[in-house]
Amino acid sequence: MPTISERGKQMPASPIRKLVPFAETAKRNGIKVYHLNIGQPDIKTPEVALAALARYDEKVIEYSHSAGNESYRKGLANYYKSIGVDVDFSDILITCGGSEAISFGLLSCMNPDDEIIIPEPFYTNYNAFSVAAGVRVTPITSRIENGFALPPIKDFEKVITPKTKAIMICNPNNPTGYLYSREELEQLAEIVKKYDLFLFADEVYREFCYDGLKHFSVTQLPGLEQNVVLMDSVSKRYSACGVRIGAMISKNKEIISTALKLAQARLSPPSLGQVIGEAALQTPPEYFKEVYNEYIARRNFVIESLNKIKGVFAPMPKGAFYSIVRLPIDDSDKFCQWLLEGFEYKKQTVMLAPATGFYSSQNLGKDEVRLAYVLKIEDLKAAVECLSEALKVYPGRTV
Amino acid sequence: MPTISERGKQMPASPIRKLVPFAETAKRNGIKVYHLNIGQPDIKTPEVALAALARYDEKVIEYSHSAGNESYRKGLANYYKSIGVDVDFSDILITCGGSEAISFGLLSCMNPDDEIIIPEPFYTNYNAFSVAAGVRVTPITSRIENGFALPPIKDFEKVITPKTKAIMICNPNNPTGYLYSREELEQLAEIVKKYDLFLFADEVYREFCYDGLKHFSVTQLPGLEQNVVLMDSVSKRYSACGVRIGAMISKNKEIISTALKLAQARLSPPSLGQVIGEAALQTPPEYFKEVYNEYIARRNFVIESLNKIKGVFAPMPKGAFYSIVRLPIDDSDKFCQWLLEGFEYKKQTVMLAPATGFYSSQNLGKDEVRLAYVLKIEDLKAAVECLSEALKVYPGRTV
Repeated sequence: MPTISERGKQMPASPIRKLVPFAETAKRNGIKVYHLNIGQPDIKTPEVALAALARYDEKVIEYSHSAGNESYRKGLANYYKSIGVDVDFSDILITCGGSEAISFGLLSCMNPDDEIIIPEPFYTNYNAFSVAAGVRVTPITSRIENGFALPPIKDFEKVITPKTKAIMICNPNNPTGYLYSREELEQLAEIVKKYDLFLFADEVYREFCYDGLKHFSVTQLPGLEQNVVLMDSVSKRYSACGVRIGAMISKNKEIISTALKLAQARLSPPSLGQVIGEAALQTPPEYFKEVYNEYIARRNFVIESLNKIKGVFAPMPKGAFYSIVRLPIDDSDKFCQWLLEGFEYKKQTVMLAPATGFYSSQNLGKDEVRLAYVLKIEDLKAAVECLSEALKVYPGRTV
Repeated sequence: MPTISERGKQMPASPIRKLVPFAETAKRNGIKVYHLNIGQPDIKTPEVALAALARYDEKVIEYSHSAGNESYRKGLANYYKSIGVDVDFSDILITCGGSEAISFGLLSCMNPDDEIIIPEPFYTNYNAFSVAAGVRVTPITSRIENGFALPPIKDFEKVITPKTKAIMICNPNNPTGYLYSREELEQLAEIVKKYDLFLFADEVYREFCYDGLKHFSVTQLPGLEQNVVLMDSVSKRYSACGVRIGAMISKNKEIISTALKLAQARLSPPSLGQVIGEAALQTPPEYFKEVYNEYIARRNFVIESLNKIKGVFAPMPKGAFYSIVRLPIDDSDKFCQWLLEGFEYKKQTVMLAPATGFYSSQNLGKDEVRLAYVLKIEDLKAAVECLSEALKVYPGRTV
């Protein structure tokens, strides 16, 4: 029997999804599971997008252009212009979710054994895509104490080697909810220029910035046009995760033409998803206002409730809809699994993502979990209540 | 300015898609272009599938299970059972097109610098996915003279090295239209066992076998259960290329659990495409019969017409809807580009794929093109007429 690949063995299991079988067992046993493990919002997809799908009447569901439908790319370029990001439609490749944009970026820009610096905790799947591409992740640890602000630039410079090819950030940040300021990004720009690096920026949560703060995109940093690769997705913006439509954007023509070869190899992004994506560009401002208000209320509720639980610390997120929360526990992997297979409160439990999977450094995140406040307040209330009760009886409680 | 990756530079441009800009220019100049370059059939997607999409009324387009919806996987397992392929739904991962199934297979089973043997000419994108995965392709040349039959097994054994980890076949074959016989596959099975290799089989055209021949799947080879990885797609079977739904199937649990980690990293296959894929399982037999008759008529027409042109040789395909055709030309890349930018006949021309891109060996395929007979006979007639007229005046004609 032939053996699987080493990279297959090294491929990390997703902390967001690896406990799914335990959740399924809990559900089969009649337990209601509140899913705070995954950024699957319960917000409705915009009417205007669903209406476009309902009107769809093609008789042959054909491939699209490998870079995505031109009309969609042109519409998307207008969307970017409206938020102050100056791109031409030819700078855009439509991808199969933000995921494929990340893969395309890594494969186009980086060779095996090249290094990419990422502030941790980071979106766990950057790790998996890096393993698939043979790229080495060099983490720089950000800290819960200051809400996971950008680590000092000298921390980045310390780990830069001749193999360092890129820095990757997610802003607003998944999993921390931190929103990088313009000043932090300008500092980052300096070392990107100094060491001639690529700057990958995952900005899929840009519409989710709170407390009057405004998102500043790395594409607005002067002089970085040839360095920046933007990764985007419609999944969260329009609560349409299942359409698998994202985009990779760069003013660097060489990157786009290289990624286009990858795009042509897989023929086309999903055609039906593009119908949704293009129509969603017409989503009225009221939709976002309503969603925004809902998330503010959810965030405030969940963070305040969590901080009332003894031994729990949850920094206030400034963006996205995640929070990394410190719990009085020995091991977040054990705890999250135990929540599903060893605990229930009024026939209910909560599914969380162990934070260990969001750190690249060993042994970090053992007393932290990632939580996505993507459910309505009534459900969040029940979920937090479950967590509170669970912490009272969890055998591995530390304080 | 940072430089793109070596693998990005090595990534081959798709022979199927790289001439698209020339076709776009021709169209802008008022020329009708017959697309025989790409396997985009004009056949209608089954009514039953389109009807399911029309009934779709979810208010939130959510992620699906990373392995695909369970109901779809169960339905698919029944489909395979009905064609004599015994798989459980847990052996199946739904992928984003057959393309992703190929990527998952390579990444799960092979390390960088491992070698995969593929009879050439082969589906060009195997090359691109191999470059992305750092895998080396070792071609074994099949010949137009015998219709691209499986090369002698001794040719395979000659190139097997300690780095050889897999053999990949496409059956019925894209781009040649050849259908491997049970005997040929049994010979292949012997060396797969002898050298403990993986056998990747792309069987997306299994419903398209002609002249009373029956498809034999490598999954039916006894004793190869742990070696075989099947790649499948709904694109051609149901003429639904744009839904981007495929599948990777293996009885080898280690492969499936490894590929599942990759699947979890990209979250989920397209949800809307799965609606089409699952509903398409109910496609009535009459649909396939009609499609089958149509392709037989197209094949017979196109192959007979081509062989009537002086200097042209087109072997009769036994499956799929492609043919590699030998033309009296100096250079198929030049010729196919010239067809789009230097030629017209009655304001019409034809787009073909240069066969060079389907060979991994240098300098092969220069007098061959791949043609997909995916248009109705009236259009094929016009396309062949264009080709015939073009060959009369092409400056690089050889005989």
